[in-house]
Formats: sequence, structure tokens, C-alpha cells
Amino acid sequence: MRTSRLEAFSDGVLAIIITIMVLELKVPEGHTFADLRHTAGKALLSYVLSFVYVGIYWNNHHHMFQLVRQVSGGVLWANLGLLFWLSLLPFTTAWMDETDYARTPVVIYGVNLLAAALAYFVLQRVIIHGQGPESQLRQAVGRDLKGKLSPLFYSAGILSALFVSTHDRLGVVLAIGCYVLVALSWIVPDRRIDRAVRDFGSPD
Amino acid sequence: MRTSRLEAFSDGVLAIIITIMVLELKVPEGHTFADLRHTAGKALLSYVLSFVYVGIYWNNHHHMFQLVRQVSGGVLWANLGLLFWLSLLPFTTAWMDETDYARTPVVIYGVNLLAAALAYFVLQRVIIHGQGPESQLRQAVGRDLKGKLSPLFYSAGILSALFVSTHDRLGVVLAIGCYVLVALSWIVPDRRIDRAVRDFGSPD
Amino acid sequence: MRTSRLEAFSDGVLAIIITIMVLELKVPEGHTFADLRHTAGKALLSYVLSFVYVGIYWNNHHHMFQLVRQVSGGVLWANLGLLFWLSLLPFTTAWMDETDYARTPVVIYGVNLLAAALAYFVLQRVIIHGQGPESQLRQAVGRDLKGKLSPLFYSAGILSALFVSTHDRLGVVLAIGCYVLVALSWIVPDRRIDRAVRDFGSPD
Amino acid sequence: MRTSRLEAFSDGVLAIIITIMVLELKVPEGHTFADLRHTAGKALLSYVLSFVYVGIYWNNHHHMFQLVRQVSGGVLWANLGLLFWLSLLPFTTAWMDETDYARTPVVIYGVNLLAAALAYFVLQRVIIHGQGPESQLRQAVGRDLKGKLSPLFYSAGILSALFVSTHDRLGVVLAIGCYVLVALSWIVPDRRIDRAVRDFGSPD
Repeated sequence: MRTSRLEAFSDGVLAIIITIMVLELKVPEGHTFADLRHTAGKALLSYVLSFVYVGIYWNNHHHMFQLVRQVSGGVLWANLGLLFWLSLLPFTTAWMDETDYARTPVVIYGVNLLAAALAYFVLQRVIIHGQGPESQLRQAVGRDLKGKLSPLFYSAGILSALFVSTHDRLGVVLAIGCYVLVALSWIVPDRRIDRAVRDFGSPD
Repeated sequence: MRTSRLEAFSDGVLAIIITIMVLELKVPEGHTFADLRHTAGKALLSYVLSFVYVGIYWNNHHHMFQLVRQVSGGVLWANLGLLFWLSLLPFTTAWMDETDYARTPVVIYGVNLLAAALAYFVLQRVIIHGQGPESQLRQAVGRDLKGKLSPLFYSAGILSALFVSTHDRLGVVLAIGCYVLVALSWIVPDRRIDRAVRDFGSPD
Repeated sequence: MRTSRLEAFSDGVLAIIITIMVLELKVPEGHTFADLRHTAGKALLSYVLSFVYVGIYWNNHHHMFQLVRQVSGGVLWANLGLLFWLSLLPFTTAWMDETDYARTPVVIYGVNLLAAALAYFVLQRVIIHGQGPESQLRQAVGRDLKGKLSPLFYSAGILSALFVSTHDRLGVVLAIGCYVLVALSWIVPDRRIDRAVRDFGSPD
Repeated sequence: MRTSRLEAFSDGVLAIIITIMVLELKVPEGHTFADLRHTAGKALLSYVLSFVYVGIYWNNHHHMFQLVRQVSGGVLWANLGLLFWLSLLPFTTAWMDETDYARTPVVIYGVNLLAAALAYFVLQRVIIHGQGPESQLRQAVGRDLKGKLSPLFYSAGILSALFVSTHDRLGVVLAIGCYVLVALSWIVPDRRIDRAVRDFGSPD
């Protein structure tokens, strides 16, 4: 089975997810800058965060499938699993926005990110399993330190929102901080940290 | 005529259908977990069901067109027929959700699934007819036991919702059970049942 | 310039237009069959009509670009012109629905169809002009009787809605009849009438 | 890394943006021509403007990537940056519409256009930088007079809306005039001005 249609379909779904979130941005009621800031200020922040996350997934998906030649039924379904969790992002993003970053929605957003990360991990495993002992992808992935640390950070964010200081917003701020940190770790260091991680992970 | 544009167009439509359903998920009014469960709990269930159905159709469409070289006008229109019925899924899914799985919406959802299944069957026939007596697709399809049982199960679901026990929700539960069962039969057994069906169907 | 990206972009836009219309279908308020018929009955009719029209355009676009090798700036803009008019279809369809087929919306829907037909004609001309005296497309198009009659029928529909019998709904019914007739002329006769038209048009 | 998936993804996002704006067009409440003009008249104007802008970007993107063979991580992110700003166009367009072209929304629309232009410029630079001293794209771009003048015109529009005559609508009209002018400069002169600009820019 060829990978081209799977890639085209995934591109389509990711393109729609990334664009659909703008529909969630409510047009301000008034016509002043204050109205804009009031209505869309924080919404824009979470829109950017989710946009960046979908961008990261598209980017990684793109890279991963360059090492894939054959697509089995298992890969198709693992891929749909990833797309499913990503397709919920506009929903969880909107809930987080509209409740002004209340505790539960921030937790659920983190759970969504965590589930997507696990779905990506499963997809990776299914591909590696299918490629057999000389899997090119396994070599490219290496120890995958970043891939393994991300779920830990998501979990830390979720736990912060749940248990840290329910009186003020410290827990929520910490949680968002974790989510932003993971996103940054996947964009910024494409060269510096990546290489370090690879060097760090290469000995074995 | 090449199949590539037909596949690209179908991929686009299916990608949009599968993603658009998330727009139907209403963002909860409150900010607690109970609000989420109340507003989106059941909606999420039917969202998953429809997501899986569109995934199955994409998957099967993908497989089928690997055996198609030439596309006639008839195939184009049969394909549009299939896309038409699938494009109604977000609508029938939303109605089923919003009425909390009332009888008629559950029936209509089943009719939608049934119509899509028949449209798929027509598409398959049109392709086989066009390929002539040595059709590769006919050989691959074989007896197509699963393809022929699915409409029976949809019909059983529709009839259950219509006639079984209008006092409690037994009929509706049976109907949803039928719809879920068909979906499962197309995902889970990619290996075991598929092979059995093929062996069972190969003698002739 | 290659045609592949123009085709991919057009496929994307047409796929979205054809699918977005389902978002216009309002979910019925109640949960009975009568509610469905009341809310979505006529909407479904015009949804089908617009679906078929976008399908026809995609179909014809697909055919036409099989005879195109090079894409100039003029073709890109003529193509965007066509996509523009088609992208208004969900809007004019929704207005026609929501006003229960009132006179003006039916006229505007016809104007939209007419404008799309003219934009298609312009696109065809720009391509033929670019291909020079030995244009393959010109030969394939021939006299293009159907392409020339369609605008006449749209105009007839528009005029009917405007001037025929403003007391009852005869004018509107005639208009819708014209729009349906043109659509049918592009689907049904792919073989019989097409060949007849071609034979009729081939002498010169 | 191949450019095909980046192009496909960008095509998808641009196709969705260009089509999603029609969802912002509110269906008129009444059924008369006056209702249509009242509700959708100005909206249609800004819809056309944004449609043309996305068309221009798609067109230029298409041209630019014909000179690109390899895609680096930097190009992927610069491309996502461009898509991000363009994905905000439906939002800023809708705000401008719904406030009947009030001052602040017109300014914000201009800022959006300016940001997209800068993102495009950054994308171009990143590609040229990656191609090294003999960059084909650098030669093709030349002095890029039009690319450099556009941000000036956007800025002029923004400043007009901000500071010219807050008593009447002169500032806003000037601003819209600037935005329209830039759009025209990218469509109309595909031949005349383009060549002039190229001749004017070729000496060095």
C-alpha cells in the first residue's frame, strides 16, 4: 500500500484542524481596541498555542513518513487515532478560552495533548514493528528523549492545574507553562538541542 | 481518465467531513467536569462512532481504488453519491446527539449509514462493470460477506429502534448496538475474520 | 507552470464548498419525523441541487484540465474567478432555503449559477487562447451547445422568478425547474445526449 | 526533504481560508433585495478583497516554490508563520464587516495584511538563505520592488485610518483604498508592470 494517500488525507485533516480554530475566535461585539483585547486577547494566545501544536505534529508526521514505504491496516488506524485526538483540539481550546482558563478545562486541554502524544507514540511503534528488526525509523528515532519527556511535562501540567493552590491561579499558570514549554522544545531547538539529544542518546 | 484527482477530491471531502463533526461538539456552558460530561459526554460517543465510520470508508475507498486504473463518468457520479451520503453524517450525528438519542433520529442515523453502504456497493458494482469480465476488483472482493451483512445489521438496528419496546429505551440501545457492531466488524478483525471470510468465500 | 497544484487547490476548494453546505442544514428542534421534514425537508432539496452543481463543475473542471499542460497567470485568475462564484453557492443556497424559496433569493441563486457558468466559459476561453490555433481543448469542446444553452436556461429561470405570476408561486417553480433541468442535462446524458450534441455540433 | 507535502498542506490551508470566509457572510433576515444589500452588501466587498488577497498569496506561493527543491525545518516554520497570519484573515475581515468598517477594525485588518506580507518576506529570505550564494530564487525575485512597496502602502493605510480626519470617514476610505491598490498591483499588471519592475530592477 502506498503512503501518498495516507499523507494526503492526514494533510487535509491537519489543514482543516489548524484553520477551523479561527472559527472559534469570536468577533468582538464593539469596535474598539479594548473590545478586541477583551474578546479575542486570551483566545488569540490559546489559538496560537494550538496552531503551533498542530504545526509541530504536521512537521513530525511529515518527517516520520519520509522513512515509511509501506502502509499496513494497523498504520492506517494508528494514524486515524492520532488525527482523532488532534481533531478534538479546536474543541478543548475553545472550552479553555471561553471559561477564561478555568481549572478543569486547562486539565482537559492537557489530557488532549497527552492523548495526542501517546497516539503519536503508538503510531511510531506500529510503524517500527511493521518495518522489522532493521527499521530505518527506529534508528532515526534513537532514544527519542524528547518524545518521552513530553508526556511527563504534560502530566506535570495536568497535576499542577489539579492540585497546586486552588485558591489563586498558580496551578493553571504552571500548567499552561508546561504546555508552552513542550511546544517550544519542539520548535526552537531544531538544531542545538536536537543534536545534543542525539549525541546524548547515541552511545547505545 | 486518471484516478489521482478522484482520490484527491474524495480525500478532501472525507477529511472535511471527519473534521467538521468536531464543530458540532458544543462547548460546555460551565467550567466543571460535570458540565463537560453533561454537554459533551454522549456527543463524544456519537462523534467517535461517526469518526470511525468515516475512517472505515476512507480506508475501504483507499483499498478499492488501488485496483482501479481508469475512471469513467459513471464512476465519478457513483463516487459523488457515496460522498453525498457521507456528507450528511455530521447532520444526522448532530440530530441524534441533540435529541439525546431519541427514536426517530436514531432511525435516521441508521438510514444514513444504510444509504452510504448501498452507495458504496453501487460504486463497487460500477467499477467492476467497467473493468469487464476479468475485473481485478471482483476477484479481490470475492463473496464480500461482510459487505452484504452490514446492510442487514443496519436494517436490524433501524427496525429495533422503530418497533422494539417504545416504552423504555431498549429499541434505541439495540439499534446503537447494531451500528457499533458493524463498525467493529470493519476495524477489529482486519486479520482474523477477514481471512476467515476470504477462506469461506474463496471456493467459488 | 504545472497544472498539478492548480488542480489540487481547486479540488480543495470544491471539496470544502460541497461539504460546507451541510453545515447550513439546521438540526431540527424536535425529535420527530415531522420536525425533520419541517426543518430540513426543503433544505435537503436545495442542498442536493447545489451538491450536484458543485459535482458537475468538479467533473467538468477535471475533464478540461486533462487537456491542459501549461498554466499561465491568466488561467490562475480565471480559475479563481470560477472558484469565487462557486464559493458563494452555500450562501445563496442557505438564503433560498431560509426564506422558503422566496422570489428574490431564487433570482439571486440563478444569478449565482449564471455567473459561475460565465466564469467557466471565460476560463475555457483563456485556456484555448493560451493554447493557440491548434488548441486541443477547442477541438474537444467543439460547438459546446450545452455550454451555450445553460446560460439561456438560467436566464429563463431568473426571468420566470422575476416576472411570471407574482401572486402565486408559479414563477419560482418554473425557475427551480430551469435550474434542475440544466443540472440534469449535465448528469444524465453523459452518453446519449452528449453524443447527439457532439454529432449535431461536429459538421463545422 | 521534498516540497510536495509542504505545497499540499499549504494548498489545503489556503483553500480552507478562502472558502471559510463565505461562512462569515450572514444570510439576510428578510427576503428582499434590500435585505440582501443591507446585510451582505458591504460584507461581499470585503469578502472579495480577502478572497483576492488569499488568491494572490496562493499564486505567489505557487510561483516561489517552483524554484525550491529542498525544504529545511526553517522553511517549514516560516511557511507556517505565513499560513498563521493568513488564517486570521477571515476573523479580521468579519470584524471589519460587522462594525461597518469602523476605524480600529480597519487598522487591524491592515495590520493583518502587513504581518502576512512580512511573513512572506521572511519565508522568501529563509529560502534564499538556504539556497546559498547561487540562489535561483534570489535571481528571480530581483529587487522585488513590488514586494517592498506593499508594506509601505499597508502602513500608509493603517496610518490614514488612525490619524486622518477622525470626524468623517475619510481616513477609513483612504485606508481601504490603499489595501485595494496593493491587491490590484498584484493582479492587474502581471505583464506590463511586472516586466517594467523587472527591467527597472535588473541592472544590479
